[in-house]
Amino acid sequence: MKACGLIVEYNPYHNGHHYHFQQAKKITNSDCVIAVMSGNFLQRGEPAIIDKFNRAKIAIEQGIDLIVELPYFYAVQHSELFARGAIRILDSLQVDSICFGSEHGKINDFTEMYQIIKKHQEEYDSYLKLMLNNGESYPKANELAFNKIGGNKLLIDFTKPNNILGYQYVKSIYDIDSKIVPITIKRIKNDFHDSEIKDSIASATSIRNQLFHENEENIIQAVPYKSKEILDNYRLNYGAWHYWQNYFTILKYRVLTMSRSELKKIHGMKEGLENRIIEKISKATNFNEFMELVKTKRYTKTSLQRIFANILTNTTSTEIKHLIAQEQPDGIRVLAMSPIGRQWLNQHKQQIETTIFTSNKKPYPYQTMDERIDNAYYSILPIPVQQRLLKQSYQKPIFKTSQ
Amino acid sequence: MKACGLIVEYNPYHNGHHYHFQQAKKITNSDCVIAVMSGNFLQRGEPAIIDKFNRAKIAIEQGIDLIVELPYFYAVQHSELFARGAIRILDSLQVDSICFGSEHGKINDFTEMYQIIKKHQEEYDSYLKLMLNNGESYPKANELAFNKIGGNKLLIDFTKPNNILGYQYVKSIYDIDSKIVPITIKRIKNDFHDSEIKDSIASATSIRNQLFHENEENIIQAVPYKSKEILDNYRLNYGAWHYWQNYFTILKYRVLTMSRSELKKIHGMKEGLENRIIEKISKATNFNEFMELVKTKRYTKTSLQRIFANILTNTTSTEIKHLIAQEQPDGIRVLAMSPIGRQWLNQHKQQIETTIFTSNKKPYPYQTMDERIDNAYYSILPIPVQQRLLKQSYQKPIFKTSQ
Repeated sequence: MKACGLIVEYNPYHNGHHYHFQQAKKITNSDCVIAVMSGNFLQRGEPAIIDKFNRAKIAIEQGIDLIVELPYFYAVQHSELFARGAIRILDSLQVDSICFGSEHGKINDFTEMYQIIKKHQEEYDSYLKLMLNNGESYPKANELAFNKIGGNKLLIDFTKPNNILGYQYVKSIYDIDSKIVPITIKRIKNDFHDSEIKDSIASATSIRNQLFHENEENIIQAVPYKSKEILDNYRLNYGAWHYWQNYFTILKYRVLTMSRSELKKIHGMKEGLENRIIEKISKATNFNEFMELVKTKRYTKTSLQRIFANILTNTTSTEIKHLIAQEQPDGIRVLAMSPIGRQWLNQHKQQIETTIFTSNKKPYPYQTMDERIDNAYYSILPIPVQQRLLKQSYQKPIFKTSQ
Repeated sequence: MKACGLIVEYNPYHNGHHYHFQQAKKITNSDCVIAVMSGNFLQRGEPAIIDKFNRAKIAIEQGIDLIVELPYFYAVQHSELFARGAIRILDSLQVDSICFGSEHGKINDFTEMYQIIKKHQEEYDSYLKLMLNNGESYPKANELAFNKIGGNKLLIDFTKPNNILGYQYVKSIYDIDSKIVPITIKRIKNDFHDSEIKDSIASATSIRNQLFHENEENIIQAVPYKSKEILDNYRLNYGAWHYWQNYFTILKYRVLTMSRSELKKIHGMKEGLENRIIEKISKATNFNEFMELVKTKRYTKTSLQRIFANILTNTTSTEIKHLIAQEQPDGIRVLAMSPIGRQWLNQHKQQIETTIFTSNKKPYPYQTMDERIDNAYYSILPIPVQQRLLKQSYQKPIFKTSQ
């Protein structure tokens, strides 16, 4: 039995994700596909449009065999830490390969880039640091450092988000001496930031954009039936989808009742940024306006959103630091599994050194943190709904009995 | 020129308050009446139904000459600290007398009680402490300690809230050797907790109750015209009146995203109560339900509300302790004044040692704290309204030019 790992957010699951999943399974000739998925907050610092349980439900219905959670402290991080967390988990789960989408599409170049950087690691690191100190954003500083040492040998365009992520996956695999074989599939659409749906393969951004503007019927061509159904039911039963805009009142309340020293302790907060955040949030009447006021070349939208997620969830640097320093996660939480997924876990019991949480009998080590984050995430929903969801939160994972 | 001091909350200003104000002015033969008024949160730990500026506006329209703010750290406290703060401020302002309403109505008995307790201070204090440790509430423990030392000489019924407050005013005056002459007027209605309005003198509780149930026309007989007009305009222009119920979503979000150690640091939090609060708030669907679940003989509604106000406003013991330990407030903030009020301040410039803030030219020493509290208070209003109100917040006080 062979398993292929995917690193996903499914925000929401669409035809492009489905295509990638099917291709990955086929190319790697796998019997089992395991996805590690961000929880209720995502890598770019956004709340997921629907919660992790419903996103896992769609994925299991679409044929993924095992969906485990990428915990908040790995998920809401820049690409390097995000990748490190995801690879550690997939490595623990004994997958044979991972398959990621990239704009570049050729795996050998990723490996070669890793070798080049490895050779110039010191120079690379010091230049990266210099660029960060010069006020460059993290992605830009990385790109400049890559350019600096790669010279003409720069094989991959690192301004493309999926190339950067892919590189970090490959790097993490080699850094931890994992036996995982990395594979990449060229993304058939690169229009990550497109805001309109043009055909059956559309970006998640464009799909969310249609949902945000209440044009949910427009997404039909771009998502599987199950995805549309679960999205619709979520809003019907719980009252809302999750967007930053819905959290603005609470975020503003929170920022304006924190002391400056408390704000400074928030994970990701940079020197002096707390003053800028206080000043700008007092002036803005909605989240987009706030973002426009607060962002700069140095403070990118993504890095700011991650900081806002940390403010909203009351996540401090102190809390995060020791968690990301761990060699192995303290536990892996299963959100959903099929009979094949369960079989995989059973067959690899001996090799899997990390505790797998498939029930609420044993306490999940990140439960306190997780509940706090879920409370923040659900805070925009009507109170009776919040209670129902929080009660379910530590139930057994979704188990799909029929294919 | 003579001035009489009042200690008020005006939540909202009603005919009973107006009667008391007129009587106080007459009995003391004063030219000027100075009220020290709780800000946006009140002694019993409730948000005021409308903000301090609008409550001050009603009072000035009704003839009070000077309204100054009792800062949050004095206002949202048990009766002893509340009284101490109010008397310190009135003493600084050089009032000749204070006049308070009480169920008892005879000032000599208050003075005599003070002498009795003074004589048995040690016994009193240790018995009070013992009762508190036995799980009695603060008012009950006080009553028992009074009984203990007073024996048959217990002149005043200390189960009545205004007798307790009055006693604390008298005590504070003597404790600081103030030259203020205390005077009391017997309350003509003692139905503090009545929920219905029966005639032109009704309790503030019954008036708020009518407002809460959207029967605002019912209050006409019990409040001056200006009070009704300003209450109506507040809701019309700002969208809501302030009740705990409206803050439940934010309070719940806040409690459930705080760590236990953060909750323990909140001013007034008692050992183990943080666990009870977390447990009960997870189960409740509204504020009243929450209160019913969390309160006990030991944790009274009032003491809990004060703790919830501190959670909502992020007020810690550390912050409060040094503020209430001060001999004198660092500054007194004027919310509204008449020409007579201004004249009083001008004539007593030499004697008033505390800085008086009547403009935003000098920074009010509690401004940072005040803004944080106002942000929490206004957080339930629509965002554009919040901004308008916060912008006005540090403008000059209301000045009434004509009588």
